[in-house]
Amino acid sequence: MPKQTSHDREDDEDDENTFRILIATDCHLGYMEKDSERSDDSLNTFEEILQHARHQQADMILLGGDLFHENKPSRKSLHGCMALLRQYCMGDRPVQFEYLSDPSVNFSTNPFPVVNYADPNMNVEIPVFSIHGNHDDPAGLGNLCALDVLSVAGLVNYFGKSPSLEDVKISPVLLKKGRTKLALYGLGSIRDERLHRMFLQGKISMLRPKESSDAWFNMFVIHQNRAKHGEHNYIPEQFLDEFIDLVFWGHEHECLVDPVWNATQNFFISQPGSSIATSLSPGESKQKHIALLQVRGKEMKCNKIPLETVRQFYIEDVCLLDTELDPDDVHVEKKVEEFCAAKIDDLIAKAAGARSGSPKQPSLPLIRLRVDYSGGFSTFNVNRFGQRFVKKVANTRDLILFHKKREARTGQAE
Amino acid sequence: MPKQTSHDREDDEDDENTFRILIATDCHLGYMEKDSERSDDSLNTFEEILQHARHQQADMILLGGDLFHENKPSRKSLHGCMALLRQYCMGDRPVQFEYLSDPSVNFSTNPFPVVNYADPNMNVEIPVFSIHGNHDDPAGLGNLCALDVLSVAGLVNYFGKSPSLEDVKISPVLLKKGRTKLALYGLGSIRDERLHRMFLQGKISMLRPKESSDAWFNMFVIHQNRAKHGEHNYIPEQFLDEFIDLVFWGHEHECLVDPVWNATQNFFISQPGSSIATSLSPGESKQKHIALLQVRGKEMKCNKIPLETVRQFYIEDVCLLDTELDPDDVHVEKKVEEFCAAKIDDLIAKAAGARSGSPKQPSLPLIRLRVDYSGGFSTFNVNRFGQRFVKKVANTRDLILFHKKREARTGQAE
Ligand SMILES: [Mn+2]
Ligand SMILES: [Mn+2]
Ligand SMILES: [Mn+2]
Ligand SMILES: [Mn+2]
Repeated sequence: MPKQTSHDREDDEDDENTFRILIATDCHLGYMEKDSERSDDSLNTFEEILQHARHQQADMILLGGDLFHENKPSRKSLHGCMALLRQYCMGDRPVQFEYLSDPSVNFSTNPFPVVNYADPNMNVEIPVFSIHGNHDDPAGLGNLCALDVLSVAGLVNYFGKSPSLEDVKISPVLLKKGRTKLALYGLGSIRDERLHRMFLQGKISMLRPKESSDAWFNMFVIHQNRAKHGEHNYIPEQFLDEFIDLVFWGHEHECLVDPVWNATQNFFISQPGSSIATSLSPGESKQKHIALLQVRGKEMKCNKIPLETVRQFYIEDVCLLDTELDPDDVHVEKKVEEFCAAKIDDLIAKAAGARSGSPKQPSLPLIRLRVDYSGGFSTFNVNRFGQRFVKKVANTRDLILFHKKREARTGQAE
Repeated sequence: MPKQTSHDREDDEDDENTFRILIATDCHLGYMEKDSERSDDSLNTFEEILQHARHQQADMILLGGDLFHENKPSRKSLHGCMALLRQYCMGDRPVQFEYLSDPSVNFSTNPFPVVNYADPNMNVEIPVFSIHGNHDDPAGLGNLCALDVLSVAGLVNYFGKSPSLEDVKISPVLLKKGRTKLALYGLGSIRDERLHRMFLQGKISMLRPKESSDAWFNMFVIHQNRAKHGEHNYIPEQFLDEFIDLVFWGHEHECLVDPVWNATQNFFISQPGSSIATSLSPGESKQKHIALLQVRGKEMKCNKIPLETVRQFYIEDVCLLDTELDPDDVHVEKKVEEFCAAKIDDLIAKAAGARSGSPKQPSLPLIRLRVDYSGGFSTFNVNRFGQRFVKKVANTRDLILFHKKREARTGQAE
């Protein structure tokens, strides 16, 4: 039975008992950084997220993995991320919640096993907590990931890194604000097939606090396939423990941040989705959001916040057979090209009319036209075609995707 | 005329006017990190350096470049370095000197143009100042280097990064402790030929403080070839300004830390040398040191400190013609091999008798035998030969270097 929104506006003043958690995920810092037009997109929106956290007076920021697009981020991405975290997350405002669990368990692989705001040498105002994703997972000498670097700098509290992949016991980060107790479970990305098998073999266990375990609001942050890609290539929601109140699902890039009730499992799932489109698929074309999650006692409220700096992205499907175009027309190739150009012009106009109003939103949109050319039509050179849209769109090279026979196309999580 | 050691022991109590500067350079973090035996050497000695800084109650640490061996250090090196800096350089003891110059000039390329101990969000106890070397110079997107990453984390004050390579104006970091005024000039590594030409063209200028310029102790940190490698492939000492009191010369790996007076230029030069041997050359085989440099008024004292965790390294030259060995002996090959093995055993024994006593000094030494085999001798398979010394030396694969005709061999700076 839904427990959401059960504290209403009058109660909102009860600040001292309410966690204000800014949730965001899949920022993919560094994505397209070598593209002159799109180079700054990911950091640009990451900055917006941090600004929202400040503006919303968030107690903490919770990230769901894939903070970086590359396993070994460029210095520019790493440096840019660190600069923003230092700028927005450090400061004098005291952190309003207590950290109750054992940091040497929660942060066992960190040389400084301490929650960053408890380090007397760091002045942290908004602690960031994050698990790793599949893009920024631990690898190489020392089995470290980019979050380990941020963590040793005191800029992020990296949790959910399992010391073993044989038998995973997830110990929650236990936090308390006034009377509200929050148990934060995290599991960094593991290959889906493997994690699927581990769940089936009972090798994943969630440790619960010994005392008054019913009093905790239990949140679980994971970064896995939620959509079924093959028999074992995802994590079914029913694998997750029923004592959980809210699952924060990372990795899936479509924004489904409004919590969805799973009536079988008796928990909510919020999937914030990525803060940047890393593929030109329909899921990525929807408005991107983050959310301010408020937790008081066992109740929660999730207010979504539209991201205003995200580059606009419009996608449309056309099937040439459904148009006036005749494959046997001697001028058909030219006509198809003009038809597509007109469609793209429409999408550009649509984007122009729907700008967020933020001066930091990039001006050129991403456009994708998926053209079903079955029925005797032929394709044209999409690169040459794209040159017509230089300085009108951000992705001149892949505006058009030709395919045949109304083939099914679904977005893949990233 | 030498100004060194002119303050003697009785004066040593004059702490409030004396800068205590720990100088070290060329730590080459990450060197041989993939070698199972030598993997930790560079970080191990870097830790010793930081421990000396604490133990000596240094006001600051000054590094001369090549902190990292690779331009893109592995996560393990970067993470390890950051962990050590956080461990040893942060803390509550107040920094005893003032920062007087304009940080937006000294740290112009940093998004946080501030000396790290002045940042109210960081509790820095021993500020580290560093220029970059040729191994860790700025490159790639954003023209950043590894020191930029440390700098944005607030762990290092990266100076001497010139925004232009056309016309370099070096603005000093101006520091004051009691009555002592220290002007710290830095110039990160530039390709020697280029810098040589720039000096000749008058494109390098050192800006001096307007007021009471005679009162400053002027120190210049550079990272270039000091030894002449070809006509223009080094920086002659006479290129450097005469108002300088002390040149801190990085890049050259041989330890010549005791200040040497240049009577033409009227300045001292201290060349600390690397803290790890990155080549098996004679210069690298000498005892490695760092130093505690004390500056009071216009006087200085340089106390060298032997590094006790450096892996031992012994090198010897032999010329087979000078031995009893006969190239025409039918068993000569076997005999040469045994001769070399005996020499190496001697060097291993020599190393065993000369250990520093530190439990953190690695047990297996580096050994290099340079064998002149001219006069009809032949070589043998050094890889196979090296197998005899597994677990006796750290470098079984390159114990022996064969060469002919007493060829001159000099070490190259790194
Ligand atoms: Mn992912
Ligand atoms: Mn992702
Ligand atoms: Mn060098
Ligand atoms: Mn070097």
